[in-house]
Amino acid sequence: MARVTVLDSTLRDGAQSEGISFSVRDKMRIVSALDELGVDFIEAGNPGSNPKDIEFFREMRSQKLANAALAAFGSTRRKGVKVEDDEGIRSLLEADTETVVIFGKSWTLHVEKILRATLEENLDMIRETVAYFKSKGRRVIYDAEHFFDGHAANPDYAMASLRAAAEGGAECLVLCDTNGGSLPARIAELTKAAGAIGAPLGIHAHNDSGLAVANSLTAVEAGAVQVQGTLVGFGERCGNANLSTIVADLELKMKLSCLREGSLPKLAAVTRRVAEIANVGFDEGMPFVGLRAFAHKGGMHVDAVIKTPASFEHVDPESVGNERRILASEVGGRAVVIERVKRIDPAATRESPLVAQVVKRLKEMEALGYQFEGAEASLDILMRKAAGKYKPFFQLGHYRTIGEQPSGDREHCAQAMVKIAVDGVDEISAAEGDGPVHALDLALRRALERFYPNLSEMRLADYKVRVIDLPGAGTGATASTVRVLIESADSDDAWTTVGVSTDIIEASWIALVDSIEFKLIKDLERRFKPYLS
Amino acid sequence: MARVTVLDSTLRDGAQSEGISFSVRDKMRIVSALDELGVDFIEAGNPGSNPKDIEFFREMRSQKLANAALAAFGSTRRKGVKVEDDEGIRSLLEADTETVVIFGKSWTLHVEKILRATLEENLDMIRETVAYFKSKGRRVIYDAEHFFDGHAANPDYAMASLRAAAEGGAECLVLCDTNGGSLPARIAELTKAAGAIGAPLGIHAHNDSGLAVANSLTAVEAGAVQVQGTLVGFGERCGNANLSTIVADLELKMKLSCLREGSLPKLAAVTRRVAEIANVGFDEGMPFVGLRAFAHKGGMHVDAVIKTPASFEHVDPESVGNERRILASEVGGRAVVIERVKRIDPAATRESPLVAQVVKRLKEMEALGYQFEGAEASLDILMRKAAGKYKPFFQLGHYRTIGEQPSGDREHCAQAMVKIAVDGVDEISAAEGDGPVHALDLALRRALERFYPNLSEMRLADYKVRVIDLPGAGTGATASTVRVLIESADSDDAWTTVGVSTDIIEASWIALVDSIEFKLIKDLERRFKPYLS
Repeated sequence: MARVTVLDSTLRDGAQSEGISFSVRDKMRIVSALDELGVDFIEAGNPGSNPKDIEFFREMRSQKLANAALAAFGSTRRKGVKVEDDEGIRSLLEADTETVVIFGKSWTLHVEKILRATLEENLDMIRETVAYFKSKGRRVIYDAEHFFDGHAANPDYAMASLRAAAEGGAECLVLCDTNGGSLPARIAELTKAAGAIGAPLGIHAHNDSGLAVANSLTAVEAGAVQVQGTLVGFGERCGNANLSTIVADLELKMKLSCLREGSLPKLAAVTRRVAEIANVGFDEGMPFVGLRAFAHKGGMHVDAVIKTPASFEHVDPESVGNERRILASEVGGRAVVIERVKRIDPAATRESPLVAQVVKRLKEMEALGYQFEGAEASLDILMRKAAGKYKPFFQLGHYRTIGEQPSGDREHCAQAMVKIAVDGVDEISAAEGDGPVHALDLALRRALERFYPNLSEMRLADYKVRVIDLPGAGTGATASTVRVLIESADSDDAWTTVGVSTDIIEASWIALVDSIEFKLIKDLERRFKPYLS
Repeated sequence: MARVTVLDSTLRDGAQSEGISFSVRDKMRIVSALDELGVDFIEAGNPGSNPKDIEFFREMRSQKLANAALAAFGSTRRKGVKVEDDEGIRSLLEADTETVVIFGKSWTLHVEKILRATLEENLDMIRETVAYFKSKGRRVIYDAEHFFDGHAANPDYAMASLRAAAEGGAECLVLCDTNGGSLPARIAELTKAAGAIGAPLGIHAHNDSGLAVANSLTAVEAGAVQVQGTLVGFGERCGNANLSTIVADLELKMKLSCLREGSLPKLAAVTRRVAEIANVGFDEGMPFVGLRAFAHKGGMHVDAVIKTPASFEHVDPESVGNERRILASEVGGRAVVIERVKRIDPAATRESPLVAQVVKRLKEMEALGYQFEGAEASLDILMRKAAGKYKPFFQLGHYRTIGEQPSGDREHCAQAMVKIAVDGVDEISAAEGDGPVHALDLALRRALERFYPNLSEMRLADYKVRVIDLPGAGTGATASTVRVLIESADSDDAWTTVGVSTDIIEASWIALVDSIEFKLIKDLERRFKPYLS
């Protein structure tokens, strides 16, 4: 099987994304994730332009990678400076990576207007810089910035810049569509043309025309043997080529080998982990790895996919570590609900009264602004309630939250008081927190832990608020209905619950209670399982 | 200039997206938006499968469209039923649209396993259904569901299904990559093959392989004259082909005509409006139309793009109604800050002490968890403060919020009390609201309107909360630092402000105060402009 090497630039080009900023620790965690996935190169920063990156490369010296080679990134030497005297080049050497990626100019516009160098001088800069790192024992990948635009402006010069890098000893010449404006046909044509140089080629595409994935695949078809991108598609403007998509397309559809063998089923989890470390909301519609990638909602589709998965699935979800989801929704109808009710009551059929009841209850809740897609733990509790397989774990007597600014000698403070009862035994507790929801969360758990000590294992992993417009309701920003999603986790599982109210504290309370009850039900089930089998 | 017709299916295939549910009023607003943009066909629903759609088509009879033809969507007749007796067909007729889109099966798997019809019967169903609508004076577009997968399984049958529709009189045969699994080369090959039938062809692509845009463009290159998709890319699983990207690529790069002439500069605004009506977060990295599509952050890029826009922009942002943005961030450095400081102080240069001061302040705020990308009004105020061009509009004495459940005879309630002073004059006010932030918002505005009556024109348009992980901070869900974004608007402008705190009420307060001050500064500026010129 032919092999395409993969260079991930999440930590370099991806760090240029709006809203992304990596700490040194973030970077190290992302390196581990990418290494585990089995990419070939991790382009991890530009030590010449970013002081944080210098610290990172220092830290990395003691860390051994299983698969990937770490690469530092930097430009060709400055004009009029000897390569060994150039500060940027020195930082790159000091980064002490096996591989360096050197980028240079192929577009006369950039040479003349941005670098303000002569065309000949730029070719020298490319050749000398690459040769210098080769002489220092480094592997050198050469990124031909703006290759496609450069070729349009001056084809001979763009090709000459590639040849300069090849002469310097670059092991791969990477054709960069830096502005992301090229169409696949052009990528194919120029990749083939660059093949005449005789060096291995790579492709580095951006998504400004929505074509980064297609352009990458096209280049591979035309002879490129390295694909550069970022696993989650991070990158300036519209992002770099999304490697999670490309890798799956190359392996599953074009039958080429990219990742370390057997790694593809880790794709969904590792992609999500990288997005989490970057603290960026995950695009659940992302091909192959998103929660929605194999989710079915339309009634007809759901019927079909249950009968014959291939009827609406282009690949097996498990091949990329994802799973099929059947969504709860008015469009889906009973087929959807039955699939889920069966988890609570395996004997349920299309005609069960329970199914009709759940459908009715779902419609009522949706009218209030609930959506259970992505809040499956709340849906599970709703179904248990409808099925009579539920008993509350506690009764709320009363809660009160207070927020103040200023408060005594402090800038602001939040407190909550909660009174609950479990089997007739009252418990009252209070807590101070970072904000009223946190105070309420602490006070409620403090009260409950006396009765349910296993709650101490549970932690709240994420808290999301979305303002929703309900048709017909008078709305307006802070007065709008809000939907709160709380993601909770213990050492074994993660689950998400939902609450809706015009009052953010009340919406949080609803989601909080579901989350705690889900944990308690889950633990009970596990404890009693041995007695059932 | 060759012309490609555009069919938008936001209201039909797009409504299958997870998390999307349109009211009749939403649908009517989206029809207006798409009509204004100048698409040819608006596929607006399936009256046979969704009762809401019947009401919608009834409402639409009285609404005149300027450009687009409304189309109802439905399947071929059921097996063993006469076409005129089929309920779905009747609903389609009753929808009373000039155009109908009929979908039928081209994949033997679906004919045999899902429809459970014979192959011959399915061809009759296609031919008869199309012919029936033609006989009723309708224009008929035929969607060949699963055409590419169907062709892989049985090429002759897939082609026969197209011929049946052509025989029935379909004006366009649309090749659907329903599962989104096809690669561009395959799309090109089969589009060319289907050309032999002699009928106009269309393409309907899904994004499961990240290739929907490329596949659509490829089909056009291979002869297709209609592109189907959804303007924002909504659709089941990974979405339909994104029409905002495709239309810009076809017009700007392939020099074909799609939208009504002169409409392309409306692309960004209309795409955003459709996403807003759907109440779906806008992907700001979307090619052409996203806020990030022409945003520049990397220091080197920013320098270059200021010198020569073409150096990092593949098209002129204004051609699609978007604009260049220079981002505030540590990576961007001074070049970025200068561009923004100039709005406050036009004489600022790279060496101005003000620029250094703003850079320092930005770094401090970023360390606290602030991000000013997307909260330009707060950034504006920060710069004014640094420049000494700021005077607070009021002083906070004290606020207190109370949330309770249950409260008297009500389920829950929230109240706030605010004491402020303007030029030494105290004002105290209180309000009850739907949650503590709303109560605080109301109480603050009530207190301030006495001094600043123009605040009554301002409304809060959106309220977002994001939990952020600060490196080094002990975190955990409801105790985490939160970043609140408030979008405000009056009749002329919209602006966004940001607040960060571990206390959601305090974070909201900060963003609220910035928002009010921005409104007051803006109005002052406008009022005094005549005295300056």
